[in-house]
Amino acid sequence: MQIEIICTGDEVLTGKIVNSNFSYMSQKLEDVGLSVRWGTTVGDDRETLLHAFQQAGARADAVIVNGGLGPTIDDLSQEIAAQAAGVPLVFHEEWFTRMEDFFRRRSRTMPANNRKQAMLPATAEMIDNPIGTACGFALDIGRARFFFTPGVPRELRRMLEEQVIPRLLLKSGLQSTIHLKRFHSYGLGESHVDSLLTGVEDLVPDGSVKLGFRAHYPQLETKLTARGSDLDDIKAKLVPVEQEIRKRLGNFILAEDDQTLEGVILGALAKCAGTVTIVETFTSGQIAARLGHLPGAEAIIQRGIVSRDLRQIHESVGLPGAPEGELTREHAEAVARAAQRTTGATHALAVLVDLDDGPDRIEFGGAICLAIATAETVESRRSRIVGGREWVRLGAVEMGLDCLRRFLQGLPVYERIDFEKV
Amino acid sequence: MQIEIICTGDEVLTGKIVNSNFSYMSQKLEDVGLSVRWGTTVGDDRETLLHAFQQAGARADAVIVNGGLGPTIDDLSQEIAAQAAGVPLVFHEEWFTRMEDFFRRRSRTMPANNRKQAMLPATAEMIDNPIGTACGFALDIGRARFFFTPGVPRELRRMLEEQVIPRLLLKSGLQSTIHLKRFHSYGLGESHVDSLLTGVEDLVPDGSVKLGFRAHYPQLETKLTARGSDLDDIKAKLVPVEQEIRKRLGNFILAEDDQTLEGVILGALAKCAGTVTIVETFTSGQIAARLGHLPGAEAIIQRGIVSRDLRQIHESVGLPGAPEGELTREHAEAVARAAQRTTGATHALAVLVDLDDGPDRIEFGGAICLAIATAETVESRRSRIVGGREWVRLGAVEMGLDCLRRFLQGLPVYERIDFEKV
Repeated sequence: MQIEIICTGDEVLTGKIVNSNFSYMSQKLEDVGLSVRWGTTVGDDRETLLHAFQQAGARADAVIVNGGLGPTIDDLSQEIAAQAAGVPLVFHEEWFTRMEDFFRRRSRTMPANNRKQAMLPATAEMIDNPIGTACGFALDIGRARFFFTPGVPRELRRMLEEQVIPRLLLKSGLQSTIHLKRFHSYGLGESHVDSLLTGVEDLVPDGSVKLGFRAHYPQLETKLTARGSDLDDIKAKLVPVEQEIRKRLGNFILAEDDQTLEGVILGALAKCAGTVTIVETFTSGQIAARLGHLPGAEAIIQRGIVSRDLRQIHESVGLPGAPEGELTREHAEAVARAAQRTTGATHALAVLVDLDDGPDRIEFGGAICLAIATAETVESRRSRIVGGREWVRLGAVEMGLDCLRRFLQGLPVYERIDFEKV
Repeated sequence: MQIEIICTGDEVLTGKIVNSNFSYMSQKLEDVGLSVRWGTTVGDDRETLLHAFQQAGARADAVIVNGGLGPTIDDLSQEIAAQAAGVPLVFHEEWFTRMEDFFRRRSRTMPANNRKQAMLPATAEMIDNPIGTACGFALDIGRARFFFTPGVPRELRRMLEEQVIPRLLLKSGLQSTIHLKRFHSYGLGESHVDSLLTGVEDLVPDGSVKLGFRAHYPQLETKLTARGSDLDDIKAKLVPVEQEIRKRLGNFILAEDDQTLEGVILGALAKCAGTVTIVETFTSGQIAARLGHLPGAEAIIQRGIVSRDLRQIHESVGLPGAPEGELTREHAEAVARAAQRTTGATHALAVLVDLDDGPDRIEFGGAICLAIATAETVESRRSRIVGGREWVRLGAVEMGLDCLRRFLQGLPVYERIDFEKV
């Protein structure tokens, strides 16, 4: 089935906003086994909108249009959809009442121009938007079924998932259920994981499981898209594949599905009634910032201590003046131990970075010395990362968090990663 | 002049990566007075690429194609460009030598498949890429001039600015020089600034100055696009407009042009040989993180102290146990004073946040009590921000930094902003 996406709106066309709705929709379709073949971006302009609708209607089987359903004069999607389909706009009493209720529940009066949002092409099938005033709808233009969706991301997301994707699956004949299983890892590059996982799809011989990746440095997402007659069937099929992936990626898997690295760390600390103090240098608060604002973190993050100056770090944790020479694991251990002791946390993470000198460049790197201490024990690692200032910063943040996760899960804090130089 | 952009690549089409190149290009063109009329996204597929090139070539005057110039088998731009233009691919000796040098300088051997990057359509005008191996080029397809650019953002950005935009301006007949003047502000919403600036464009009666905005909460960028015979002419014309904008937006302007809030703060502290300690609660290190990793910050950021627990904050700065009851300006002042004293910094910023209880929702808010202290003086403010947890967090970070900027510039730390509730 040929699917296209048309994104409308001057703000998107002129680049005032980055079009993240497009990638969101495209990924969601990929996740259920559908593919987008063509994307179009046009502004709030009658002539180009009509042209875009007609062209996609001649080429595709299904088209998702995003944006242009608002109450203002530059929102043109209903009008041009009606024109392209050769039908009049008609007033939709049911939606008008829904909008009145929407405003009443918020103790507001509906402005007159919202009436426009209840005008739909005569042949349109209404598509519900339970959280906004922009009414979605579907209709045929040319040989394609068009689905009109709101530009507000949270309204789009809900409508896409609950209304549009089921209709697309039905139309595509992919009546089977689809399930997406995800693994999140840190430390192995996409091509490395790809080669480590060679053949795992074949553990389900009927070809109904597909492997894919999404890299967002420093983390990598490994995705399994599985198809079957129902969810139980799929889950049974996936068991051996999941087991094999967990075996092959081992300790590098930091979370699965909707879990996050932050959530796993906070969960592990909460479980042991633990607290943590975080000491940072070059990362300047970015490790603490990944955890501290999350709900529940107020009882877990004991203290964050930040300085680019090791003497300040030492003073903060009650150690004598900073040592000279190259940063070592032992130094990170001493800082972590002292931070744990002086702040009274059950755990302390110290991430000290020795940056290269000179201007930023692709060979620019830094040595990351990190340690995790409790009252009884301490573990540490030293790793060099290169690739420019930003790369070192992002790598140090992620390595610090991931080593804390490893420590809390009883896994080795040191395992060689693809991003470090030896 | 009708301009289109075609973005190519499976990673963009499937949403594996968000297409920020599109918005970047579109904004850069807007900044010089050019507009994009149509955007197309297609994958690494011969048939759709050819179709996209032909369609744009029949419709537009100029087309920028992004991506597909790499060395791998799925990089098809040169091949399909040649096909669409009806010319053969020819080997480009000059570029091949450049690539060999590129690898030699990095002490690497050029892989055989990079030869492909030196194959260009016979009629192509080569466009230099001084920082990569993907050779840009221009040629005619249909009635349009096509400009082929690399997908790697930093290579694209440089080529667009130095090579493509000058050619587009020449082609468009906009021979006049264009200059972009920008003001960055925090605290006033876009529509408020728009109404405050009513009529400023008319200070240049010939209509050659255009006002525009780009909002990226919490900051707002106010842009003046000015046209003239040369840069001196434009700058002279802009003087009264700039003065008027500075007068009307006053202390809310935090930086101009390429300056940033972070840069202004570090610059002001460096100038007075100052250092700063930052104390944070809910923002959990995010204020320190905006400054601490920047070049030069190592001598300026004295210490960052983070905790969600006020007793920990008090202990860190040598104050007795935390007070009960509502957070006050006086409390923030006491913390800032103590932090300045105990860490020996010339300045201390304390940003304490009293979050609402309960689950996240649109009415969720927080009271921000912030203070800035030196050895001699202290200033403070208390502001309530609502709009959900994330909104409060972003607002507290920006308000903390902006008030520090105000203090360092001798401006009042408190002026009512549009985002606070009273």
